[in-house]
Amino acid sequence: LSIKSYNLCFLGFGNVNRTLVRLLRDREKELSDRHGVAWQITGLASRRMGWIADSAGLNSSILDDPEKHKFHANEGPALRPSDNVRDWLQAAHADVLFEATSLNVENGQPAIDHIRAALEGGAHAITANKGPVVHAYVQLSEIAAKVGKRFLFESSVMDGVPIFALFRDALPLVKLQAVRGILNSTTNVILSEMENGLSFDAALAKAQALGVAETDASYDIDGWDAAVKVAALATVLMRVPLKPSDVRREGIRKLSPQAVRDAKSAGKRYKLVCRLKRLDDRVEASVQPESLPLTDPLAAVEGTSSIICFQTDIFPELVITENNPGLEATAYGMLADFVRAAESDRVGRT
Amino acid sequence: LSIKSYNLCFLGFGNVNRTLVRLLRDREKELSDRHGVAWQITGLASRRMGWIADSAGLNSSILDDPEKHKFHANEGPALRPSDNVRDWLQAAHADVLFEATSLNVENGQPAIDHIRAALEGGAHAITANKGPVVHAYVQLSEIAAKVGKRFLFESSVMDGVPIFALFRDALPLVKLQAVRGILNSTTNVILSEMENGLSFDAALAKAQALGVAETDASYDIDGWDAAVKVAALATVLMRVPLKPSDVRREGIRKLSPQAVRDAKSAGKRYKLVCRLKRLDDRVEASVQPESLPLTDPLAAVEGTSSIICFQTDIFPELVITENNPGLEATAYGMLADFVRAAESDRVGRT
Repeated sequence: LSIKSYNLCFLGFGNVNRTLVRLLRDREKELSDRHGVAWQITGLASRRMGWIADSAGLNSSILDDPEKHKFHANEGPALRPSDNVRDWLQAAHADVLFEATSLNVENGQPAIDHIRAALEGGAHAITANKGPVVHAYVQLSEIAAKVGKRFLFESSVMDGVPIFALFRDALPLVKLQAVRGILNSTTNVILSEMENGLSFDAALAKAQALGVAETDASYDIDGWDAAVKVAALATVLMRVPLKPSDVRREGIRKLSPQAVRDAKSAGKRYKLVCRLKRLDDRVEASVQPESLPLTDPLAAVEGTSSIICFQTDIFPELVITENNPGLEATAYGMLADFVRAAESDRVGRT
Repeated sequence: LSIKSYNLCFLGFGNVNRTLVRLLRDREKELSDRHGVAWQITGLASRRMGWIADSAGLNSSILDDPEKHKFHANEGPALRPSDNVRDWLQAAHADVLFEATSLNVENGQPAIDHIRAALEGGAHAITANKGPVVHAYVQLSEIAAKVGKRFLFESSVMDGVPIFALFRDALPLVKLQAVRGILNSTTNVILSEMENGLSFDAALAKAQALGVAETDASYDIDGWDAAVKVAALATVLMRVPLKPSDVRREGIRKLSPQAVRDAKSAGKRYKLVCRLKRLDDRVEASVQPESLPLTDPLAAVEGTSSIICFQTDIFPELVITENNPGLEATAYGMLADFVRAAESDRVGRT
């Protein structure tokens, strides 16, 4: 197996990309032995750090504590500043961009521009961001095909569980007809806590204390996160481009604690359910709280676990459940995408 | 996309291979458009038919009613008889062998010889038979790699659900630590019927009437089918070769209807549970009836449905459930393997 070395660039350097760097380090030998992949980090960028690049490889003190190395004009030639992603990628001689900026539900920017810049500059583009998938999947896939690079986004739905790889690579010729699932952790944790007697606000505070919900959790609570995921599934797996605003969406904000507890007493559980269905000429998509009987596998999904049920023309129902994922799951999805991109290089597939 | 045409040979012509022929016909256009694959059937063989081959393509009247076309010496040159698989594959100019003969638990023969003959003759070998996987996985994989062909067997466990493709292609670098599952339908149906009050014999008769259990169901009832599947998972997914006889095995024959009903009254269900666990230097494998609480996802698996729970170093638990598969699922696994083999040809990967 011949070894190919990759220059890696990380845009956004929060939990996901930091964990990804750790996974890359932990799996260095396996990546080389099994997949013929070597790597060095040549670019780091975040709002705090600014744009850091060194095509000879950033030294590890920067990686260990990047915030100390926020670029200053007097830092010398090794760290080359830039004010835009194209210059930065070029200075880093990037082969792969790991895009982990935060989501823009309305238009997917600036992540779409980042990914386009990477592809047009000759780098694979790997993202954990759902925005580019729902707002520019066709366009970015076409650019990727044209330049012979990959645009991959496995971590954008269900952490790093290979939902997209499953249908793209492992289930050829299978036609997806419908999807049902629970794909948002924040609402799932809040609903469980409300069942246990907490008010909505107290349940939200608890989810925030657990690190599951963000400070501004309205994006989860109002169903946007789930709606973007449903739109991504429709766009990629059903090849029907769908915008988040096309998804009929109802969050859990108006659900009373009494209704949740009453459901529990009646042997049911409220869950924020994602639904997607292929009709003759379009898809029907929704996100809404539903009261489910305990015999429904969706009702058993707790905390940060998630579930997705696929109806297909071959398999009446395939269900994938991810139980208790850690921080690693999302970062792993990007690592696996990197392996897939390297595999494409190896076989010359685009 | 350039089109490559494949000569297909079917060894064993029962439900699985017949359904596969139907799927191939139904998906002819998609196979060509999406995967650059065309095909014709050049070989059919079964105990009843004997060996039928025509490298120019068998005409469809043979396919529609192959038993009418059992080879007779006076049938002319188009149908060339042979008395062994090598001659037959050669006469058929085989590019792909679909091996669907019945399982030999002890030594995997004659399927291993069939597959070896195909690979050494320059054909991809695709099987629904677990025997070659547990008795010759390493050896057949090495031959396949040497000749640049694929040895694939997705349908051997959990019908055609892409368990093997998942770990081989979609979950790179993931280390499988343990497996738990329900992988045998006959015992699952019998246990459900016993819960409903039937005796073991009546439950078995019902499973046979439903077409789930074979006339001689001892292979299922005594846990051999499940044990072979566990051995296949260990051999392929954990890279620890395991023979069916290495699996601690207890069937459901000795389970009394009273015990099954008592469990049900106590809010539990008996299931024939497969377990596999990686230890430092070996694996621990078992198949045995277990009384499971209803909160266990395994307890909810009914009839011909199956479930497999994977513990890995990245994902604490990934669960795949296949609900109510039809006859198509197993045949589909072979079709998908064919697409994978053709994809390997296309990219020159072996």
